[in-house]
Amino acid sequence: MKFSFKNDYSEGCHPNILQALLQSNLDQQAGYGEDEFSLKAKELIKEKINNKDSEVYLVSGGTQANLIVISSILRPYQCVISASTGHILNNETGAIEATGHKILNIETEDGKLRASDIVPVLENHQNVPHQVMPKLVYISNSTELGTIYKKEELKSLSAFCKENNLLLFMDGARLGHGLTSEISDLTLEETAQLTDIFYLGGTKNGALIGEAIIINNPDLQQDFAFNIKQKGALLAKGRLLGIQFLELMKNDLYFDLAKHANQQAMKIKNALKERGVQFLSDTYTNQIFPILSNDLIQVLSEKFEFYVWKKIDDNSSAVRLITSWNTGDEAVDGFIEIFKANS
Amino acid sequence: MKFSFKNDYSEGCHPNILQALLQSNLDQQAGYGEDEFSLKAKELIKEKINNKDSEVYLVSGGTQANLIVISSILRPYQCVISASTGHILNNETGAIEATGHKILNIETEDGKLRASDIVPVLENHQNVPHQVMPKLVYISNSTELGTIYKKEELKSLSAFCKENNLLLFMDGARLGHGLTSEISDLTLEETAQLTDIFYLGGTKNGALIGEAIIINNPDLQQDFAFNIKQKGALLAKGRLLGIQFLELMKNDLYFDLAKHANQQAMKIKNALKERGVQFLSDTYTNQIFPILSNDLIQVLSEKFEFYVWKKIDDNSSAVRLITSWNTGDEAVDGFIEIFKANS
Amino acid sequence: MKFSFKNDYSEGCHPNILQALLQSNLDQQAGYGEDEFSLKAKELIKEKINNKDSEVYLVSGGTQANLIVISSILRPYQCVISASTGHILNNETGAIEATGHKILNIETEDGKLRASDIVPVLENHQNVPHQVMPKLVYISNSTELGTIYKKEELKSLSAFCKENNLLLFMDGARLGHGLTSEISDLTLEETAQLTDIFYLGGTKNGALIGEAIIINNPDLQQDFAFNIKQKGALLAKGRLLGIQFLELMKNDLYFDLAKHANQQAMKIKNALKERGVQFLSDTYTNQIFPILSNDLIQVLSEKFEFYVWKKIDDNSSAVRLITSWNTGDEAVDGFIEIFKANS
Amino acid sequence: MKFSFKNDYSEGCHPNILQALLQSNLDQQAGYGEDEFSLKAKELIKEKINNKDSEVYLVSGGTQANLIVISSILRPYQCVISASTGHILNNETGAIEATGHKILNIETEDGKLRASDIVPVLENHQNVPHQVMPKLVYISNSTELGTIYKKEELKSLSAFCKENNLLLFMDGARLGHGLTSEISDLTLEETAQLTDIFYLGGTKNGALIGEAIIINNPDLQQDFAFNIKQKGALLAKGRLLGIQFLELMKNDLYFDLAKHANQQAMKIKNALKERGVQFLSDTYTNQIFPILSNDLIQVLSEKFEFYVWKKIDDNSSAVRLITSWNTGDEAVDGFIEIFKANS
Repeated sequence: MKFSFKNDYSEGCHPNILQALLQSNLDQQAGYGEDEFSLKAKELIKEKINNKDSEVYLVSGGTQANLIVISSILRPYQCVISASTGHILNNETGAIEATGHKILNIETEDGKLRASDIVPVLENHQNVPHQVMPKLVYISNSTELGTIYKKEELKSLSAFCKENNLLLFMDGARLGHGLTSEISDLTLEETAQLTDIFYLGGTKNGALIGEAIIINNPDLQQDFAFNIKQKGALLAKGRLLGIQFLELMKNDLYFDLAKHANQQAMKIKNALKERGVQFLSDTYTNQIFPILSNDLIQVLSEKFEFYVWKKIDDNSSAVRLITSWNTGDEAVDGFIEIFKANS
Repeated sequence: MKFSFKNDYSEGCHPNILQALLQSNLDQQAGYGEDEFSLKAKELIKEKINNKDSEVYLVSGGTQANLIVISSILRPYQCVISASTGHILNNETGAIEATGHKILNIETEDGKLRASDIVPVLENHQNVPHQVMPKLVYISNSTELGTIYKKEELKSLSAFCKENNLLLFMDGARLGHGLTSEISDLTLEETAQLTDIFYLGGTKNGALIGEAIIINNPDLQQDFAFNIKQKGALLAKGRLLGIQFLELMKNDLYFDLAKHANQQAMKIKNALKERGVQFLSDTYTNQIFPILSNDLIQVLSEKFEFYVWKKIDDNSSAVRLITSWNTGDEAVDGFIEIFKANS
Repeated sequence: MKFSFKNDYSEGCHPNILQALLQSNLDQQAGYGEDEFSLKAKELIKEKINNKDSEVYLVSGGTQANLIVISSILRPYQCVISASTGHILNNETGAIEATGHKILNIETEDGKLRASDIVPVLENHQNVPHQVMPKLVYISNSTELGTIYKKEELKSLSAFCKENNLLLFMDGARLGHGLTSEISDLTLEETAQLTDIFYLGGTKNGALIGEAIIINNPDLQQDFAFNIKQKGALLAKGRLLGIQFLELMKNDLYFDLAKHANQQAMKIKNALKERGVQFLSDTYTNQIFPILSNDLIQVLSEKFEFYVWKKIDDNSSAVRLITSWNTGDEAVDGFIEIFKANS
Repeated sequence: MKFSFKNDYSEGCHPNILQALLQSNLDQQAGYGEDEFSLKAKELIKEKINNKDSEVYLVSGGTQANLIVISSILRPYQCVISASTGHILNNETGAIEATGHKILNIETEDGKLRASDIVPVLENHQNVPHQVMPKLVYISNSTELGTIYKKEELKSLSAFCKENNLLLFMDGARLGHGLTSEISDLTLEETAQLTDIFYLGGTKNGALIGEAIIINNPDLQQDFAFNIKQKGALLAKGRLLGIQFLELMKNDLYFDLAKHANQQAMKIKNALKERGVQFLSDTYTNQIFPILSNDLIQVLSEKFEFYVWKKIDDNSSAVRLITSWNTGDEAVDGFIEIFKANS
């Protein structure tokens, strides 16, 4: 059996979660998110962002979170702005458009949006009422390319949005990885202060399913639960989500897991860099994109699974390696060893 | 702590499921339903319906299943027909309409649809193109009122649909309970033969989440997976669904659990009937609607939770009692005892 | 050629409109409703409702007006309430649902809604967030059955809506006929005061196309033009709509035309009543529903076209007769004559 | 009063149309497109494309036509491909996305799509079911930049679509101009043979409103009328559309009007070219984009209205001039004269 570096959702969940499921299994609980675990998990999250006026909702996955958030905010003629690498643009089968909203695409190198990227889009959408109205800015942290927002970058983008009557939404499917990156200077609390709405991803960080949507802007809180139910995202046994987030939030397990994933990726990155390997982008989270010779890729493929991401030239390609909360030293060291033996 | 007869999703899941989750937890599996458990579960379901040409998809919940199925089938101007008690009509926050489709409402006493109910709807929708085109018939088994379809009823409805170019979709959120009712003469295999598409509900029968959508009509199979992804229902860790259905299908655990729930309800029903209690409707599944004096309701409420369903007169009301795969004898006997002591 | 009483849109338009089109035809005008005729027509309408803070938009037809208004107002989980005879429910091919919104149906005898009809709907939609949220009340004046709202009725309904945080929308496809009915005590100005939004129908009252949407509630005015463009309703040559409403509003031609139509219908009604004919409903606008013997219907059908509306018994049926702004005395007198000669 | 070269919908309609409206005005006609004029117009169009199996529907405007056609064809997860200049992408307020469908954007220089543009889009959309499925190719002729498709280009694109299971839809808002361009070798009949569906624009070529949707692919014909009604586009007085297309089709008035518009634009183009003026794109229809000095633009603006389209450098800009079916020699010669006097 080859070890897979293809993604961070290949394994089940952190053992604490299964223990908690076992322990509470036969308790009777209220349905639809009114169970005691969900209520506690939400309280704990609000403590961690230090804002008791935020509202928290737990849903199953990232596409679901994205489509519920975006369709709940926008009026029919309003649209969302995304970097060209945005998950909502490329990897969600038109889920956002299916709710009636256009996504305006901004080409970027590193998967991040800056005010200067957005200004021309606003300028090109002045032909009222013949064009959609840009209203919501969608960003991811860490991004789909593994890059992250530094504190000043997010502050600046947040201020720009406020000045321009735009709302800011952060896709946090890998927020744990973003915040625990060795180069991150942003905290969870600041993330909540600087966004109108964001989510904390569980699926890619040790949960079976689950993303916690956190609504900081009071204007966006009204009646939000209706949207969750209407989109088929309100689990009868909401306890499944509540128990998971309760365990992940306890003692900051969530951040420990993400940090571990990042560290394992950095270990590989550093070993490769030492031998002069180039990378497609300079990342400090759990995704790395080394450029390797096709021969080496061939050899590594015998023991490991990973995506060949992009052809560079006739002899070499960039591959994508993703580590998870559960990626052990054996896999990492084994990869490095084979790399060293063959380069 | 009061024991709750409010619904069949108050507890977690059958212990076999948790054991299977534990056992496989750290295995690496392919994502998005391509894991070995999902593949096996689908095979097992196809064996049980004895049709290897059906296709099976696993999703999280009933509203999600309903909206994906209906929106995937209908053209924009086509609509669905439902009994007035239909879950899609009353309890899904307009989830179907949110995908663009009208639901035509047929008043029925017992939650079931018959050809004779549908004929007038077809007759009243002949003003082309000024009216929606009826195309899909939505039924539930067991229904929202706990009643079931007998084999001849389903055969007759199925034939009527074919003759009238209508498709037949069965909401099987409680299909286990329907098929294992003491008065049912319908099998799972026949259910598959007589419907174009249906689902097998896990959430209300011992799973944490999960409904298995089974597409029998080949015309409805094409590209179905796109709809699941677009509606945010494709779990990255599809193994969570696969493992659950694999356990439930093994040795017919699914049917044993439903049968148990039915039997516990029938035990209460019979005890009440013996003492002359009337029922709002004559059900043989895990939902019963006894009419009790308000005084008795008051006394029972001290130990048990349940919904007061409908005021009958100034002195009495119908209540709804639902039993589950995990409702024990203690709760049932305790209820009967208090009933007897106070009636 | 038989004369048709089938509807009020069989003829072209009032000659003044064609004259105005001819006169201005080769002038260059701004597009998309910024032409001078549209601007003047809007001003004139605002004068007539005596509210310069209302906003006016001109669109082509009733279904278009209905779907734009409703989808612009409601959040995704909110729904509209309509009498069971409502045009949006039965005769618009699911246009409202196609924008994502459910219509709650209230059975009524006379096509009108009263507070007492709506109270039970509100009471039955308290299961948050499992049900749609009623938000908008849709009424028609005159109704699809030819009946009208008296001033006190509209006042009372309007007050009820305000108290219950509901918005009130009047479909005025036949508002001219409603307001000029011999039993109406309601004015256009009061109509504007008592509704959040309504429209003034041109198509059924002497225009080729055109409905004037009038938004009285400032909260509903924001960005409304975007909705018109998005739904494909913003005509490049908006002058076509402007010129028509300008002509119709000048010297109250609009009301004269409607009054004429009403009077012609009343003339027939009174002639029939004198001879003891019963009517399906007691109307005072341009729609009447006399119950006639099938033999008489047969004879009348040789010279006139009309709809046989409803079978009453084996020997008689109700027919629907509609008169228009252009129904002449010859047709009316001819109909009465044949009636008298055969009854 | 300045003469406007801003667009081709500044004037009313061709006088023949007004005469025909006058002549038939008081005739009673069937509603909703069943009038004799609409029926005849449709027959005439089918004769002109030489295909009696095509179906023709008349609607009011281009955005309306686009959204009805696209939403009627695509399944929820399918999308449309458009050149980056496509009207549906930039100028319709998200009308297509509002029906649930994504538009994939292809950057092109000249507003035209070629097979080689589409191949990479297909290659990048293979990640089933995580991405939308490309299904419909949207092109315009003439394009939004005034360019046209030559016969071989359309043949080649059409063949490519067939090979790749794609459907081809031509926006013909300015099809008259495209087909009568002095460099066009494409006929209306060939246009119908090479597309699955297209429309013949009236609004920009001498009608008050009106686009004739022509469905050549029988698979796309089924139930099409429902879509028109549902989107609010079925005019009660369909005669208004029928009369216009009947007049435009008679004796090829439609093509004469377009040819006139083209010729007037070419007259200006040639006069400017003679003096060495450069153009933003090389067009042969009724839109031209000369690059002029800002000083000259200033002078011309005193007598004429037109859009300054694009800044070229600090001293010059491209302007857009559009001529219409009614642009007279006086305006054209006047423009050229001022140009010559100042360059």
